[in-house]
Amino acid sequence: MTLSNDAASPEHDPVSPAPAPAPLAPGATVGILGGGQLGRMLAMAAARLGLKSHIYTDEADSPAFDVSADRTLASFGDERALAEFAAKVDVVTYEFENVPARAVAILAETGLVRPGVEALAACQDRLLEKQFLAGLGIATAPYMRVDDAGALARAVAQVGRPSILKTRRFGYDGKGQVLVREGADLAVTFRSLGGAPSILEGIVPFRKEISVVAARGVNGAFAAFDVCENTHENHILKVTRAPARILPQTAAEAVSLAKKIADALDYVGVLAVEMFLLVEGGSETLRVNEIAPRVHNSGHWTLDAAATSQFEQHVRAIAGWPLGAAVRLGDLQGGEHVEMHNLIGQEVFAYGSLLAEPGARLHLYGKAAARPGRKMGHVTRIIPGA
Amino acid sequence: MTLSNDAASPEHDPVSPAPAPAPLAPGATVGILGGGQLGRMLAMAAARLGLKSHIYTDEADSPAFDVSADRTLASFGDERALAEFAAKVDVVTYEFENVPARAVAILAETGLVRPGVEALAACQDRLLEKQFLAGLGIATAPYMRVDDAGALARAVAQVGRPSILKTRRFGYDGKGQVLVREGADLAVTFRSLGGAPSILEGIVPFRKEISVVAARGVNGAFAAFDVCENTHENHILKVTRAPARILPQTAAEAVSLAKKIADALDYVGVLAVEMFLLVEGGSETLRVNEIAPRVHNSGHWTLDAAATSQFEQHVRAIAGWPLGAAVRLGDLQGGEHVEMHNLIGQEVFAYGSLLAEPGARLHLYGKAAARPGRKMGHVTRIIPGA
Repeated sequence: MTLSNDAASPEHDPVSPAPAPAPLAPGATVGILGGGQLGRMLAMAAARLGLKSHIYTDEADSPAFDVSADRTLASFGDERALAEFAAKVDVVTYEFENVPARAVAILAETGLVRPGVEALAACQDRLLEKQFLAGLGIATAPYMRVDDAGALARAVAQVGRPSILKTRRFGYDGKGQVLVREGADLAVTFRSLGGAPSILEGIVPFRKEISVVAARGVNGAFAAFDVCENTHENHILKVTRAPARILPQTAAEAVSLAKKIADALDYVGVLAVEMFLLVEGGSETLRVNEIAPRVHNSGHWTLDAAATSQFEQHVRAIAGWPLGAAVRLGDLQGGEHVEMHNLIGQEVFAYGSLLAEPGARLHLYGKAAARPGRKMGHVTRIIPGA
Repeated sequence: MTLSNDAASPEHDPVSPAPAPAPLAPGATVGILGGGQLGRMLAMAAARLGLKSHIYTDEADSPAFDVSADRTLASFGDERALAEFAAKVDVVTYEFENVPARAVAILAETGLVRPGVEALAACQDRLLEKQFLAGLGIATAPYMRVDDAGALARAVAQVGRPSILKTRRFGYDGKGQVLVREGADLAVTFRSLGGAPSILEGIVPFRKEISVVAARGVNGAFAAFDVCENTHENHILKVTRAPARILPQTAAEAVSLAKKIADALDYVGVLAVEMFLLVEGGSETLRVNEIAPRVHNSGHWTLDAAATSQFEQHVRAIAGWPLGAAVRLGDLQGGEHVEMHNLIGQEVFAYGSLLAEPGARLHLYGKAAARPGRKMGHVTRIIPGA
């Protein structure tokens, strides 16, 4: 039961476009596909604003269950469970881009899915994503489509070595990727990814990896957090620093690219655009690496050091509410910056010293098993300027 | 299942005092008696630190259910439900001081209750509370015990009129209180509170109401947030401002009184001490009004404007973890201050404009019915200095 009743549905007028759905009222329910730490932090942000959350996931022991009003444990192919879920929630969103498109299409038939199906489709397939970016005139790494070992040979001839073979779908944290070295047997390489439809990407000699975490509202409003720079270890994000140490015009260009992408997708919600920064001569140029149609690990620092967190911002956008201020907090003139460190696997056992460290803001995700490579939590610090 | 196993229990040694229980490990469960907005915000703070929460309440539709991993809906007199609850949680705390002492005693028999039973007992009875404070040499309003109409007449002769008759137990937000005016029929007045054991309190000519929200850890560490000043309407907190506009030495005295109280109770957790500020001549003096053995409405501003929120601080204390920094954020030299406004009853329907107000931090409690006098949410603003 929401706090106030929605206005009565306007009668359908076959001539004019469908009106935008009314903003959610407090007490409404946000359906979230996926129950990991992103879903967990989304659910808490929703609760702070008086919304309930309903987690739909196929994984038992999902961290988001601990903070959600309702939950469905079912396969993403279970159409009956999806229909029941759709009937119980007021808007559907997702915390991971690999949610099956068929599930999202079913949900979209009866309800509101934000970000929309088109945005998800463009981001969950690396080939479509690259083609979408090319269509906007946005530079990426060179790439070629690879559907079989023969195509891989042709792609290598074009793109060169070393290069990276990536499955078009279902990759994350370096999974679904293999480096194509000099001398590697291409048939073996192709089989190592299970023969899945893939692309071959050229390696970009980047100086830094940066990302833009931004939001677009239902009315087209756009707000980006400070561009941040990211350090990976074993293909997993290790450290995010905000703001990125890049030229001001490069930061402006990065935000402009993110806005172009969000506008083209008619996007609603938070998205992250990962980019490579190249330095040639004294000038910085950008190549877009990938688009995450969701809240993003490189935006976790906003929980502790921005006027609005990325999670609240996403909830505001999908609820049809005004975006919050995306400004970074702290003594900006004094050169303060923010660092977010992921706690991966056994690193979480440092929690005792992190709790005792003045100014360290600890976030733990409630996962019981500290497996290698698993994101168990993160810690944010505001670092005084020089 | 917690992240790491607790150390094996040491054998009991009848000579030395019982060792302090080991700190909780992430994954442990905090049991919370009461499911209102305080329990809800405690549960979210626990989740952020990787702890699960289990809400025990006798009220269906409790706001805290939306963000808790487990819940028990049962009477506080249901000894079997209490025992099952105690078996499933690692520490028990409470969000309201009117939890029946018998329930807490049952829980304390088998588990860890923080703050302890003694602290609760001292705070849930206005007579015992006043006697406790008197024993510490801490000034309060004048008062006398009133067990019947005859005692009320004697008390009025001593304390004077106007004065306030208050039930010893179960009062909050002005409930269980009646003003004793000139000419009022004392027998009628006494019956108007149901003939409950009461005290008569003299009215203190205060200039301001202030409060100290502070925490004490298992090792005796103590940390107070900025003293704040509070404005009430219809006996309900309306606005909290931090810091209070009082002399620095008065603020120091207020914190010192709170520490004296916490130490005397061997307190573990967050407590709030409400005080009256009197101005006589040019000097400020304090009278303690009441002690709340829990997180407190006048500490809500810490969610948005302190290095550690009162909810996180309480969780840290009862988990046996180090206290966090209690410093207020913002440009302190620049004279910034914080204001927290409660959204009471229909005021919650301002949520749309509050969401659109830059810098306003909105918190809604997920309550469906906006009844008069009901706390539906709050909003925090950081106000620039003069």
